[in-house]
Amino acid sequence: MISPKLPRIWYGADYNPDQWPEEVWQEDVRLMRLAGVNIATLPVFSWVALQPYEDTYTFEWLDRILDLLHANGVSACLATSTAAQPAWMSAKYPDVLPVDYEGRKRKHGIRQNYCPNSPNFRRLSRALVQKMAERYARHPGLVIWHVSNEYGPMCYCEECAKAFRTWLQARYGSLDELNRRWYTAFWSHGYTDWSQIETPTSTGDTSTPSHVLDYKRFQSDSVLDCYRNEVQVLRAVTPGVPITTNLMGAYKDLDYFKWAAEMDVVSWDSYPGLQTPAWDTAMRHDLMRGLKGGKPIMLMEQTPDQVNWQGINPLKPAGVMRLQSWQAVAHGADAVMFFQWRRGRGGYEKFHGAFVAHTGDEYTRTFRECAALGAELAATGDAIIGSTVPARVGILFDWECWWAVEYGSGPTRELRYVQQAERWYCVLHGMNVAVEFAHPQGDLSKFDVVIVPSLYMVKPGTAEALEAVAERGGAVIGSLWTGIVDGTDLAFLTGYPGPLRRLFGVWNEEIDPMEPGAEQRVCFAAPAPAGACIGTQTCSVAVERLHPEGSEVLASYTEGWHAGEPAVTRNAYGQGEAVYVGTDLDDEARRMVLNPILSARGIAAPLDVPAGVEVMQRVKGDRTFTFVLNNKSAAVSVSLPRAYTDLLTGAALSGDVDLPAYGVLALE
Amino acid sequence: MISPKLPRIWYGADYNPDQWPEEVWQEDVRLMRLAGVNIATLPVFSWVALQPYEDTYTFEWLDRILDLLHANGVSACLATSTAAQPAWMSAKYPDVLPVDYEGRKRKHGIRQNYCPNSPNFRRLSRALVQKMAERYARHPGLVIWHVSNEYGPMCYCEECAKAFRTWLQARYGSLDELNRRWYTAFWSHGYTDWSQIETPTSTGDTSTPSHVLDYKRFQSDSVLDCYRNEVQVLRAVTPGVPITTNLMGAYKDLDYFKWAAEMDVVSWDSYPGLQTPAWDTAMRHDLMRGLKGGKPIMLMEQTPDQVNWQGINPLKPAGVMRLQSWQAVAHGADAVMFFQWRRGRGGYEKFHGAFVAHTGDEYTRTFRECAALGAELAATGDAIIGSTVPARVGILFDWECWWAVEYGSGPTRELRYVQQAERWYCVLHGMNVAVEFAHPQGDLSKFDVVIVPSLYMVKPGTAEALEAVAERGGAVIGSLWTGIVDGTDLAFLTGYPGPLRRLFGVWNEEIDPMEPGAEQRVCFAAPAPAGACIGTQTCSVAVERLHPEGSEVLASYTEGWHAGEPAVTRNAYGQGEAVYVGTDLDDEARRMVLNPILSARGIAAPLDVPAGVEVMQRVKGDRTFTFVLNNKSAAVSVSLPRAYTDLLTGAALSGDVDLPAYGVLALE
Amino acid sequence: MISPKLPRIWYGADYNPDQWPEEVWQEDVRLMRLAGVNIATLPVFSWVALQPYEDTYTFEWLDRILDLLHANGVSACLATSTAAQPAWMSAKYPDVLPVDYEGRKRKHGIRQNYCPNSPNFRRLSRALVQKMAERYARHPGLVIWHVSNEYGPMCYCEECAKAFRTWLQARYGSLDELNRRWYTAFWSHGYTDWSQIETPTSTGDTSTPSHVLDYKRFQSDSVLDCYRNEVQVLRAVTPGVPITTNLMGAYKDLDYFKWAAEMDVVSWDSYPGLQTPAWDTAMRHDLMRGLKGGKPIMLMEQTPDQVNWQGINPLKPAGVMRLQSWQAVAHGADAVMFFQWRRGRGGYEKFHGAFVAHTGDEYTRTFRECAALGAELAATGDAIIGSTVPARVGILFDWECWWAVEYGSGPTRELRYVQQAERWYCVLHGMNVAVEFAHPQGDLSKFDVVIVPSLYMVKPGTAEALEAVAERGGAVIGSLWTGIVDGTDLAFLTGYPGPLRRLFGVWNEEIDPMEPGAEQRVCFAAPAPAGACIGTQTCSVAVERLHPEGSEVLASYTEGWHAGEPAVTRNAYGQGEAVYVGTDLDDEARRMVLNPILSARGIAAPLDVPAGVEVMQRVKGDRTFTFVLNNKSAAVSVSLPRAYTDLLTGAALSGDVDLPAYGVLALE
Repeated sequence: MISPKLPRIWYGADYNPDQWPEEVWQEDVRLMRLAGVNIATLPVFSWVALQPYEDTYTFEWLDRILDLLHANGVSACLATSTAAQPAWMSAKYPDVLPVDYEGRKRKHGIRQNYCPNSPNFRRLSRALVQKMAERYARHPGLVIWHVSNEYGPMCYCEECAKAFRTWLQARYGSLDELNRRWYTAFWSHGYTDWSQIETPTSTGDTSTPSHVLDYKRFQSDSVLDCYRNEVQVLRAVTPGVPITTNLMGAYKDLDYFKWAAEMDVVSWDSYPGLQTPAWDTAMRHDLMRGLKGGKPIMLMEQTPDQVNWQGINPLKPAGVMRLQSWQAVAHGADAVMFFQWRRGRGGYEKFHGAFVAHTGDEYTRTFRECAALGAELAATGDAIIGSTVPARVGILFDWECWWAVEYGSGPTRELRYVQQAERWYCVLHGMNVAVEFAHPQGDLSKFDVVIVPSLYMVKPGTAEALEAVAERGGAVIGSLWTGIVDGTDLAFLTGYPGPLRRLFGVWNEEIDPMEPGAEQRVCFAAPAPAGACIGTQTCSVAVERLHPEGSEVLASYTEGWHAGEPAVTRNAYGQGEAVYVGTDLDDEARRMVLNPILSARGIAAPLDVPAGVEVMQRVKGDRTFTFVLNNKSAAVSVSLPRAYTDLLTGAALSGDVDLPAYGVLALE
Repeated sequence: MISPKLPRIWYGADYNPDQWPEEVWQEDVRLMRLAGVNIATLPVFSWVALQPYEDTYTFEWLDRILDLLHANGVSACLATSTAAQPAWMSAKYPDVLPVDYEGRKRKHGIRQNYCPNSPNFRRLSRALVQKMAERYARHPGLVIWHVSNEYGPMCYCEECAKAFRTWLQARYGSLDELNRRWYTAFWSHGYTDWSQIETPTSTGDTSTPSHVLDYKRFQSDSVLDCYRNEVQVLRAVTPGVPITTNLMGAYKDLDYFKWAAEMDVVSWDSYPGLQTPAWDTAMRHDLMRGLKGGKPIMLMEQTPDQVNWQGINPLKPAGVMRLQSWQAVAHGADAVMFFQWRRGRGGYEKFHGAFVAHTGDEYTRTFRECAALGAELAATGDAIIGSTVPARVGILFDWECWWAVEYGSGPTRELRYVQQAERWYCVLHGMNVAVEFAHPQGDLSKFDVVIVPSLYMVKPGTAEALEAVAERGGAVIGSLWTGIVDGTDLAFLTGYPGPLRRLFGVWNEEIDPMEPGAEQRVCFAAPAPAGACIGTQTCSVAVERLHPEGSEVLASYTEGWHAGEPAVTRNAYGQGEAVYVGTDLDDEARRMVLNPILSARGIAAPLDVPAGVEVMQRVKGDRTFTFVLNNKSAAVSVSLPRAYTDLLTGAALSGDVDLPAYGVLALE
Repeated sequence: MISPKLPRIWYGADYNPDQWPEEVWQEDVRLMRLAGVNIATLPVFSWVALQPYEDTYTFEWLDRILDLLHANGVSACLATSTAAQPAWMSAKYPDVLPVDYEGRKRKHGIRQNYCPNSPNFRRLSRALVQKMAERYARHPGLVIWHVSNEYGPMCYCEECAKAFRTWLQARYGSLDELNRRWYTAFWSHGYTDWSQIETPTSTGDTSTPSHVLDYKRFQSDSVLDCYRNEVQVLRAVTPGVPITTNLMGAYKDLDYFKWAAEMDVVSWDSYPGLQTPAWDTAMRHDLMRGLKGGKPIMLMEQTPDQVNWQGINPLKPAGVMRLQSWQAVAHGADAVMFFQWRRGRGGYEKFHGAFVAHTGDEYTRTFRECAALGAELAATGDAIIGSTVPARVGILFDWECWWAVEYGSGPTRELRYVQQAERWYCVLHGMNVAVEFAHPQGDLSKFDVVIVPSLYMVKPGTAEALEAVAERGGAVIGSLWTGIVDGTDLAFLTGYPGPLRRLFGVWNEEIDPMEPGAEQRVCFAAPAPAGACIGTQTCSVAVERLHPEGSEVLASYTEGWHAGEPAVTRNAYGQGEAVYVGTDLDDEARRMVLNPILSARGIAAPLDVPAGVEVMQRVKGDRTFTFVLNNKSAAVSVSLPRAYTDLLTGAALSGDVDLPAYGVLALE
């Protein structure tokens, strides 16, 4: 569990007491008790309230509210409050303000609006955290640290340029090596002095893919250094207290695998829109859970009803917030938390949802739904926490590969890295097969099936690890635009898919992109002699011109100048197999690829349920919890193969069970 | 009338004699006489021609042309020529050049390209106006001052930042108060020194809605100060001469209600496109006329045939310019004026329409149409001028509310403030019910029906004034997103619609926006027991979740999770009533809301005419002028209930009258 | 022929040996021989490799590769390598870096990223070229100079502003004259000192069309000065070696007619997309060939299979590259060259097509197709080179007019200059009528028909030259938006089409643009008495309101308020005729205009072939080469009226000949 001090599913919200007079605080704790809240995240954005001048700290109000919360049974997810610096700091120390991608020095404002390499920002944020850690190290309410908030500042200033050059020197050693790896012979981009290397802005050079890629790496590392800067203090002063920072799912700018290594628990903020399909949110949970190899996660933020920062901000209909909360738990969350407790009267997010509306009372739909969920979570006691999600199917995901695919100039902008992973995930989600995401250089030994979507960049160790999966009887599925470049974005000269050519038994001669919306037809059949199609499906995005090298052809194109060329190949390898898909198949075709592979390994859904119903399991010791989630706005009937207890109601269930729209079962 | 010196409808155009050799001037006055022109606006953009160097004034050419015009019976709408400063000024005094929203110092050029808080601009424009006023104070042709042109410069420079801080100090007194009203506790935005407050640019902070809102107010005030700066001189030197500046309809950046208070007559520039519906132009006329409580206005600019500055600039087909001119008169204009007299040979607008084409003669379609209109207007003599448009229906309109709705971060970007007013206006226009726009804090005593579209921001006095309307038997109709915040954009904590909750007898719990293009169905029926729908209509944009508090339900939603919830409520209040509409109804549904309210008060069209025909009345003493405008490209027949005289032809008309495409009648 | 040193069709590619270790060079020449390559373009982007520091030159590697190429029968198209300056230069000499249209100083990077008026760039590029010319003046492989690459740097810096003022002083003599010609009386834009004139950026003034137009002229001239700066050296050091620079077809920023006058041979880079119609590429060839009055051209770059820099970069299907190569030859190319020889491992274009793929061998589809083409071209020996394309139809094209039409503010943005030329070209291409483009002030004496599409700007001499065409029995066809302004963008005051009014016998009173997608109907009929339509077609974009002045009406509008007005007129003039088309006709209507004009002059296709098959002829002395190109993806049959020899196969052909998809015949 996250902390033994709070041994149940955490339930609470971001809380901003400094936005309200203290008389409101009493009302807040009364309402928190009503709602079953056991934790509050604070003070997320209170730097200026804690330090109105450089030499003045004003922690007294925070003392009072932390005590009041603790007295009312509400623990503290204590935030370091460094995500938005005070105006006095920006005014006094101009190095704090960043330069944007357009090369413009920014003025103070918004949030995450600082240079991650600013010496003054590093010094002053560390000083604040030192004060805060020392003051609250022994506060009985403290259960976890929440460092900053939704990290993501980007900067292209001269301070960053200097730090970038140092980072490059450490990485490459010499300019000659950098010139070679960046391939600067192209367009006369050779550097003859380190000082010539600049940050890649829209007013400068973004034409060397390795330059841009390394800057993405450097920026992610720079922001991680900001996090480390605070963590070092916290580890020293409060060694036993777990530390997290709230991540943002498939957030492009930060390599979260590197981050997770320095977090005690992964937490993240989930903001699906009303049109977001259930598999999309599920995938982000499984990606976040994969960052630390499957450890339980925290849902740090979601909204109880609506947000304010999209173009259209619809309400979640009754029941949807509950469903999404249980989906988080089903995918491994031990905390269900919200932004925010009480709507502010003003400011940018005054129309963002909250437990407590502007009316300030408990007589709203939203409050009632929140209180009901609080009671329901409380009813599960300590049963679920600490349990894990078993997954035999892994999908590889690599932020560096994402950057390399999308910041370079490849065959088609329609090939989007995350989307290629989503295409496989959404089919598996529809089958109710549990998935976990993994880094290509991570531990793959737990998986029986590993999917490798568009792994354009293949770094050392990955080919060997994937071969090992197949050797021991597992299956590897690679697809479109895999195995093209090495870790510095230099093309493999050994024929695509480079180091994976042996595993897949295929040579990919060239790639032929299609116009958006265009399709080609694919025939699944025995390879030779050419039999009838056992199914004709479609593909899009691009066609790779594959040449089997010992592999058999599972499917071929039937039209145009690629007619007869292989679309899907299968290579027997060791005890297992390796399948390569040289195009973007439709969902049914993906199922045709996956089904024999999963069946052969006995991988199947835990329960047989109607379409649109999601089933996930968590296990702890010999206990298995099966979550059944009706993602549809209509009722369904689910057949249970044996007797269960529903943890939410305590009811004994078996046979046909009616599940209302957005209904949830937590069966044991 | 605007000036006793020119006691008929003014007819003329912007005139740029300094673009032509003087021999052309003689031809100009010959053609003006041919066209029936009695006024010319000049010199609108001649600063450098009047002052080629800081110490050199060259008014002689202006003397000559003013004399020539006067000698030919053409009065002068004398422009102060300050809308585009000379290049020498920008070069010599860099404070004159503005900083744009992107934070970039602009270079010289275009027009309205100066900082409204520039000390040198203020000094030099005042000096020019002083010279000009003294020189022409007693010129017999001078009938009105035209200050600058289409005001609208925006600036974000440090000079503006300083002036903004002073403006804020005057408004809030203390930083504590500003921090409270701006709700800067959100995102740690608290200020601890006035100097920390900056102009809200795209490179800085636009995330505090009250900050952005106050900057809009400040900018509008700053530009108004530029106008005042000239007006002070003119009032001192030429006390009897009326003063105007040409406004631009629903122009977002300037709070025209504040401006109109300092203008003797409202004038404006109307540039409908070929696709612009007639109600749209009509609405702008009624908004402009409402700025000074219904006083006659001037149509300062329109084009006789086409403009050049849109993407596609179609010609107005034969008859349309005449129709639009009479529409202006019908809605209260005592002047029908144009941009421009003669097409320039060069420059940005050389293909903008004019009385006189590049051929320079009277043998064009456009000239012929203009001359015909001139004769027609002259035929009305002094009959129409000074008459007013009686309107019993008022629509509230507030620039500050517009800014607050659209610069904040609300539930949906699809809720556009002006569009919400338009939705009501266009239905009333279709009914030929006269409307006048009014400020929410203005005098509402003349209205029997007051419509309150999306009055998100409710400032002191408005609730009481609207209650008074209902008390005395009037009707108030409020709609969508009304009564949410106070004048500093702080949410009401008493339940929406805040101070109007009592009047409307309804609590609006929350608001659920819809996707663009989505609709829901609304049933109009007796509230209870639930009877059959008397009409099922549609709504869009958003659904507010209304709870009646003493009001009856006039219509409800029939689908989805809002089925059965109220869409329209009616509250008996005093002698009158208050209807609240919690969504964006279609036109027919709006008519179903309006019809009983108008009928009960005897408000109806002056004449019964076919669809597409507009009818407006103006009254002066016991004379009533009824304008009948065929806005269609096909002929129609109109039945007159009694005998009239057509002022345009002198003909006696009664019974069925044929009105050709774009035809006009001016009946008395 | 381009050079007697290489008396056959040149076949080769851009070659970047400095991107590879020298052991690869041996493999390169082996593969070049396999592919039939006889020329390589190098070193295009190697400035830093040739001059790593200001005082250090490193030509030795270039010596070695040039010798190796020569030893293997590969000549050198020797590039001056100045299109991308080294980083050390940008760092040391800030004047080298340009200021962009947004007014931002750019940082180093990309390519063509220098100020064309930078003194240091001029000095250092000249120094490099001097060294290179001296070193290789007598190298036996040198057959042509390739100056820089795809010129196109734009700059708006203060250095450019100064040079612009000097350029303007030379052009106008006095500020008074500039003010008059720029029509600065509009919007008070008058200049009283030369220093007030700035570069027209988005942060400054782009509202004076003549200002913007002159800046375009000045920029084109400034870049041409960069070219001249190198050419002066080359002419002095290597007087006998021809000089070119690779142009880019209808490239807007540079007035290629002025450029071509200083080039010995026109070369250009052709990158049609897969969707680009054949006529489009053909037109660019004919435009490029017209730059020097029909002299043979070089296809300097095309891709063998795909590019990398578009959004979607599909492969060319088998056969298409060959077809496009022969199309170039058919339209006058004596060289078929490619970008690039070998795909780089890294850099921005590492996925751009090449003879040699990342696998580095000859076993790819692309290599095989390239080698086959090489053999085929070699088989033609010296037959084709030096032959010319006879064309009796000319189309006028003027870069200055293009800029004036599109940077001014005219009646409709839908009137695109190049598109108006394309509309005529594509109909003629469909008829297989040979066309050559010509400058309006160029020699028109060779044409029997001259088409004048949207010649908005008419400069001295053009009216007389067109009248001469008609006088001697030729035909002139003018269309939409012709004859509006003079060379300084001042409107003609004599009635449009200004100086062409007499030739066309028509007065264009005004122009009425249509919405995008809108159409009107046009009836072709005998003018009077009004007979039945002989064909009803459509038109779009705009309708000009024409008044015949002695001309007959060939077609009229039939709908709306323009019904009955003339759409097409014909004026008998001298021995010939002048037809004016006041709208944008559909293709069939254009054919109805063209057919009688072409028939009367005996202008027809060389062969009668099915639709989609292109036929072009080249002649040399008494030899005529007829190229038949099947632009379709399906086979066709072509009937030959007599016996031919196919130069590609040596086969004798006559009667019905089957041409496969993308097939080619070169008949003699």
